[in-house]
Amino acid sequence: MSRAIVNDNEVDIVIGAFRSDLTSFLEEWRPVFSRFHLIIVKDPDLKEVKIPEGFDARVYTESDIVKVVGSSNAALFSGYSSRYFGYLVSNKKYVISIDDDCSPAKTKNGDLVDIVSEHVNNLKTPATPFFFNTLYDPYQKGSDFVRGYPFSLRSGVPCAVSCGLWLNLADYDAPTQALKPDMRNSRYVDAVLTVPLKSMLPVSGVNIAFDRELVGPAMLPALKLLKEGKVRWETMEDIWCGLVVKTVCDHLKFGVKSGIPYVWRNEKGSAIDSLKKEWEGVKLMENVVPFFESLTLSPSAVTAEDCVVEIAAAVKERLGSSHSVFVTAADSMVGWVKLWKSVRSQVSS
Amino acid sequence: MSRAIVNDNEVDIVIGAFRSDLTSFLEEWRPVFSRFHLIIVKDPDLKEVKIPEGFDARVYTESDIVKVVGSSNAALFSGYSSRYFGYLVSNKKYVISIDDDCSPAKTKNGDLVDIVSEHVNNLKTPATPFFFNTLYDPYQKGSDFVRGYPFSLRSGVPCAVSCGLWLNLADYDAPTQALKPDMRNSRYVDAVLTVPLKSMLPVSGVNIAFDRELVGPAMLPALKLLKEGKVRWETMEDIWCGLVVKTVCDHLKFGVKSGIPYVWRNEKGSAIDSLKKEWEGVKLMENVVPFFESLTLSPSAVTAEDCVVEIAAAVKERLGSSHSVFVTAADSMVGWVKLWKSVRSQVSS
Repeated sequence: MSRAIVNDNEVDIVIGAFRSDLTSFLEEWRPVFSRFHLIIVKDPDLKEVKIPEGFDARVYTESDIVKVVGSSNAALFSGYSSRYFGYLVSNKKYVISIDDDCSPAKTKNGDLVDIVSEHVNNLKTPATPFFFNTLYDPYQKGSDFVRGYPFSLRSGVPCAVSCGLWLNLADYDAPTQALKPDMRNSRYVDAVLTVPLKSMLPVSGVNIAFDRELVGPAMLPALKLLKEGKVRWETMEDIWCGLVVKTVCDHLKFGVKSGIPYVWRNEKGSAIDSLKKEWEGVKLMENVVPFFESLTLSPSAVTAEDCVVEIAAAVKERLGSSHSVFVTAADSMVGWVKLWKSVRSQVSS
Repeated sequence: MSRAIVNDNEVDIVIGAFRSDLTSFLEEWRPVFSRFHLIIVKDPDLKEVKIPEGFDARVYTESDIVKVVGSSNAALFSGYSSRYFGYLVSNKKYVISIDDDCSPAKTKNGDLVDIVSEHVNNLKTPATPFFFNTLYDPYQKGSDFVRGYPFSLRSGVPCAVSCGLWLNLADYDAPTQALKPDMRNSRYVDAVLTVPLKSMLPVSGVNIAFDRELVGPAMLPALKLLKEGKVRWETMEDIWCGLVVKTVCDHLKFGVKSGIPYVWRNEKGSAIDSLKKEWEGVKLMENVVPFFESLTLSPSAVTAEDCVVEIAAAVKERLGSSHSVFVTAADSMVGWVKLWKSVRSQVSS
């Protein structure tokens, strides 16, 4: 099937800025990003952020954040969490989030990967979570439904999340990187697929897009480890966010796709340094995954907001006694829904 | 991770012969197949089957089939069902089934795809059905588990089935082929993945491998449509078999992988001719998929045989009243388990 058309006014690109000079990053992405509005959220530790000419970019500083969410909430958006502020203030249908350590990848033919067009194509074409199509996403050009695929399921459901992948430095954890320091991902797998119903996945915020109107309130910062910092290997926040949004999608009958587009990730940080810290996340996942896999939401949860509030209550009830981080996460989720509603009413008024 | 070693004596290659001269077919496959024992099952309509020199091949004719299964059961193995006779008489750990209209595919680098080595590698490395790994099968060379993947799930479970794919003529149904007569699959997706727990898929017998010791009795011919013949688009048999074996794998905690290796499928048959016949299968799938998706087996089913018998009972009870084909399928499944046990006792005695 054919590629969806992308309108300039339906996409926001969110970039958390951890470097004071984004010139080389944005020059690399110019052919892909220049048509679109950029929401750049400056890390509070940076003095300034340099942006080259020719971009429709709005830089949000700490004082902008305080203005929108109040000083008590501003601390939510430090480090990697800054992207979530971008999600909050976007007014477009599609939000694409990209880390500032990523360059455009190239296809096997040497063409630059247009992540905007590919993410939006993933989101604009239906997802098929109820039956697995062996030739991957049947809505991609050159593919279709395989013999035996029930016709009643072929119209699919709306796709709410598109999880892209990474060449070079893949999203491995600190133990894996430390054990295999030379391992790089060089396999360009030219496919995207719908992650089946009830199958959970490790979502990364490095290269992700979503339909803000469908699941915006479920793309949330909530679970943050003590001492969690600016080294990706330590962060649990986007993984938790992924489990929440997948649960919401399963319940509301939306799809989550994973696969293309790729970005090229440059080297950053030391796995060994990361290993020296407490590796709390590894332990937490052992409880978290069975919890989400067995969670069923009630029929009265009919919006992403409803679902998040219901998941938060279950987190508190079923995980709260095992670790205080879950109590905090549950409270953050409820707080996020309130914040979302409050900011939406400001933005749309 | 690295590639598994394949021993000559652990693999049988099963080929249903629908052409009286397999010379060109086998010459193409010589570099891949010559080390292994071939079980060639001759279609009863053929007078003879010509096999080139230099292969360790055993050809089973109609009279051989009658000798093994009795004259009342021999009719089970006509047309595309002949492969199932090969499954029955194999004595090896791994069975690979390939249709005689397939040629070796080439990788993007131009190398011949060694389907034996790739299927066996899929089967010898663990499967990971309980959590989705975004970088596909973590046990393939150059891949690993992504950050956030629970460590307790990283050892995986035994992989029981490896479903390969098709370049050129893909496994589309007659309506799709008729609507898009020029559509060919040219996308070589260099990946294999575990199909998640409880996600059903349309299995094809064209290019498939399985661990006979784990799930042999569940690789069965059972649901055959009236007038079902020798045109692949009409067959429901391998799709039904796939739903059965996936259900068995989910229950016994085995995995099913889908993806590489590819074969190149040559042109065969007319979709339009196939469309003229009753397209019964399309209607059946609408009931069949929800049935399998909601089926839960009892803890007392601890072998593939147990599972098949239990599924057969559920088929009769829950689908039997909707169409007589399901009653016949249920009886065939019970009959198959009996036949399997009887042949196994002959072969191993």
